[in-house]
Amino acid sequence: MDLLKQRILKDGKVRKGNVLKVDSFINHQMDIALLCEIGKEFRRRFSDEGITKILTIEASGIGIACITAQYFQVPVIFAKKSQSKNIDGEVYTQKVESFTRGRIYDVIVSKEFLHPEDKVLLIDDFLANGSALQGLYNLAKDAGADVVGAGIVIEKGFQPGGKMLRDMGLKIESLAIVDSMTDDSLSFRE
Amino acid sequence: MDLLKQRILKDGKVRKGNVLKVDSFINHQMDIALLCEIGKEFRRRFSDEGITKILTIEASGIGIACITAQYFQVPVIFAKKSQSKNIDGEVYTQKVESFTRGRIYDVIVSKEFLHPEDKVLLIDDFLANGSALQGLYNLAKDAGADVVGAGIVIEKGFQPGGKMLRDMGLKIESLAIVDSMTDDSLSFRE
Repeated sequence: MDLLKQRILKDGKVRKGNVLKVDSFINHQMDIALLCEIGKEFRRRFSDEGITKILTIEASGIGIACITAQYFQVPVIFAKKSQSKNIDGEVYTQKVESFTRGRIYDVIVSKEFLHPEDKVLLIDDFLANGSALQGLYNLAKDAGADVVGAGIVIEKGFQPGGKMLRDMGLKIESLAIVDSMTDDSLSFRE
Repeated sequence: MDLLKQRILKDGKVRKGNVLKVDSFINHQMDIALLCEIGKEFRRRFSDEGITKILTIEASGIGIACITAQYFQVPVIFAKKSQSKNIDGEVYTQKVESFTRGRIYDVIVSKEFLHPEDKVLLIDDFLANGSALQGLYNLAKDAGADVVGAGIVIEKGFQPGGKMLRDMGLKIESLAIVDSMTDDSLSFRE
């Protein structure tokens, strides 16, 4: 998606430890006009799949998922990172390791909202080591739902998550795949 | 907002400790069609204020803020609950006490994204004791920005946050104000 790649080249910043900082337009401040174009592109790439639910993970996936869901006319569910008083009843739980935060946490989804008849699209801002996406995939599978695929804004192609999950048979549509990055250059997969 | 009140009566659940559970349509699973109507209503109530940014707090404010921002054509910034590797540089920090989670945490916003010339609309799903909204207000004020007002989906009118912040002069538009709730009844302020 050229609009996104151009924006990453213009406003993305490479930081130590393979961090690509896009927090001026994707995951701290959010450019909603860009997110709308991203949502329409996901709709185009998953147009005939009969999707019934979009599943994402807090926090930075939520905005992208909600904007995208408008074009599918389906609800969004976001997996929560810890149990709060507001969730009672039974939940599905998976462990996820955060690349950015460097720790392992539980993510949960209430059993009320995912069912075997659901066709689920996973949405997230980044795919790096694949732990969050694998966690979302497992949550949907725990519910017996069909996972139609995953829509990712930025995939780090030099980290193993994308290959691992595609090898499992998951359809992943990443709108920009970064194959290498250094302080002063960044190249995308064609 | 009648559509919202009817939905709360139909699908909201009252839980011990003054918890109103709306996680089937607002803050775990999100009904995007309803969120669009909520966004349009916020736009109607803050139509002539020259808003330049929407500020919310992770996680459940993000979806509402992003959907709402489309109708204002402005970016969203979400305050983050802890510092991750992805935020460098200077941040504004405030302490917030979570009613639902029962603990105090830091919320931060990068100084890059809020400026004295900004006219900020605060958005959140709930207003109860007012700690989160006060934190957002203070973050915007720390940046020297003008806080135009706050759009709240559900205010618990029997808790002190709304009165406290209105007494400070903040314009708060709550789409549903719950004045009392028990296990089998729930009443809204007219």
